Amino acid sequence: MNPRFVRVRPDSTIDEALSYLRRQARERGLYETIYYAYVLDHEQRVLGVISFRELLAAPGDRLVRHVMNSDVVTVSADTDQEEVARILNRHDLLALPVLDARGRLQGIVTVDDVADVIQEEATEDIQKLGGMEALDFPYFDTGLVAMVKKRAGWLAALFVGEMLTASAMAAYETEIAAAVVLALFVPLIISSGGNSGSQATTLVIRAMALGQVRLRDWWRVARRELVSGLALGAILASIGFVRVVAWQAAFGTYGRHAGLIALVVGLSLVGVVAWGTLIGSMLPFLLRRLGFDPASASAPFVATVVDVSGLVIYFTLARLLLTGALL
Amino acid sequence: MNPRFVRVRPDSTIDEALSYLRRQARERGLYETIYYAYVLDHEQRVLGVISFRELLAAPGDRLVRHVMNSDVVTVSADTDQEEVARILNRHDLLALPVLDARGRLQGIVTVDDVADVIQEEATEDIQKLGGMEALDFPYFDTGLVAMVKKRAGWLAALFVGEMLTASAMAAYETEIAAAVVLALFVPLIISSGGNSGSQATTLVIRAMALGQVRLRDWWRVARRELVSGLALGAILASIGFVRVVAWQAAFGTYGRHAGLIALVVGLSLVGVVAWGTLIGSMLPFLLRRLGFDPASASAPFVATVVDVSGLVIYFTLARLLLTGALL
Repeated sequence: MNPRFVRVRPDSTIDEALSYLRRQARERGLYETIYYAYVLDHEQRVLGVISFRELLAAPGDRLVRHVMNSDVVTVSADTDQEEVARILNRHDLLALPVLDARGRLQGIVTVDDVADVIQEEATEDIQKLGGMEALDFPYFDTGLVAMVKKRAGWLAALFVGEMLTASAMAAYETEIAAAVVLALFVPLIISSGGNSGSQATTLVIRAMALGQVRLRDWWRVARRELVSGLALGAILASIGFVRVVAWQAAFGTYGRHAGLIALVVGLSLVGVVAWGTLIGSMLPFLLRRLGFDPASASAPFVATVVDVSGLVIYFTLARLLLTGALL
Repeated sequence: MNPRFVRVRPDSTIDEALSYLRRQARERGLYETIYYAYVLDHEQRVLGVISFRELLAAPGDRLVRHVMNSDVVTVSADTDQEEVARILNRHDLLALPVLDARGRLQGIVTVDDVADVIQEEATEDIQKLGGMEALDFPYFDTGLVAMVKKRAGWLAALFVGEMLTASAMAAYETEIAAAVVLALFVPLIISSGGNSGSQATTLVIRAMALGQVRLRDWWRVARRELVSGLALGAILASIGFVRVVAWQAAFGTYGRHAGLIALVVGLSLVGVVAWGTLIGSMLPFLLRRLGFDPASASAPFVATVVDVSGLVIYFTLARLLLTGALL
């Protein structure tokens, strides 16, 4: 917030206001990055605003009160920076007056501050989405030790979470020993869940940051994403099914139960992609509801959550469909 | 670009310039979002710039030529939007004059356009980083079919790439059949490579978008990221090593070769994380060098590339260290 703003009286004429501004500017160098004059009453409350170009364009003998715009968009000192950016943007303004609790003008925030804020907030969100803490300085200005610290925390946390996959896999060790072919598709299937979850979480986090999606929209988003997820899953399942059948026809890779394996892979893909998409879209809501930054629902975080459940979906389907055949 | 700019003559006095502006404004409503007057010669070339606040602050009898700022920052019509945003930001300007090839003023770009551009560019980059095409409209304004289309392309491409993991796994089928325990760590190891790659690619893409990292910095980035990657890999390797040894002590999960398995897992983690970090940081450079958008090096894209090579690193180390023992 900049405390140096330009004030004029409502009952000056335009000519008087202009001479007053010119005198003020010469004597005190009052305005630095400021292009509006605020019209204040005797208690410093904002009656209206007039831009310098309106001041220049108005007939000299009219009263400020009759030229000013009395429909002033204001913010308070505790308005969130991103919200200030949205308001400036929505109303195409260069500056916003900041009022105290009693409606008195405290200072202004200007659009060039806001461009910086937008840039910084986007950088923070992007770095969090990459699965790390936001850096405090530009890339090359961040020392190696600081850089490793910003990344090691999340990486280690994700690693510990991902350890559950080793436990989940161990639970299906018998199945894997009986049909090693099942192990071959593990990376393919869990990564598809992770990728679709990454898309969904990225979309929702950005839409939240831009104010397009609010907390109360969670159910609408859940339904949309479930449908999208099923469609995307069906697309990948078709490709996966064709892959298994084609490799079987060409190389005989998967033995005499190739058809069943193709079915397990295909159905797992539908399940894992729909599940990944749903989880990815709901995690930002959950985090925000719990008071955390939704941008922490990074692509790697979602992938980790989805990897474990993806394994369970895949091996459960394998058990159901392959028992009596391969298992 | 806005073609309606305000011009003044270098040899007017400030008072003349102000009356001229006031007359112009009243007669033709000339300036809309514009807060600078450009001082032009007779061939429309920019001699200097003077802000309305400087105009108001200057003594009325001085010449425009003596008050104007002759060190004008300009752009040309084909300057990239993000570059325009960076220039406005760096110089804290509200508008920039756009010149044609012969140095004549064509119009201006203003900071409020730029705030929109910054926001849009960040949204595009974030959506690409999530592994999808950027949306053309806000989340809820994008129809379900359009939404699925924007996501299916990349998801299918990543899926086809990820199919290589099935081939890579198949190449090690004998090892997996001989030691199923090896399969248990596959998701843990490849996801660690993907996560560290996601961090590195996100950092580099954002630093490139902000102009902090340029194409010629690739070697500097490569060295930094290799060192970071080795450090991060060592951290994860320690956790992984402890995990295998602890589970062995508690449950005897991994049999009499648990020590060797812990070693394979630990060394693989160092290799996969360092490799993932290096690949993740270099892909944006490669893409930009080839003329693509570096933001296409999304977290899922990097993860897919790293998954296949991660498997090769892991199973190669397993072969080297376990032959004669488990294999």
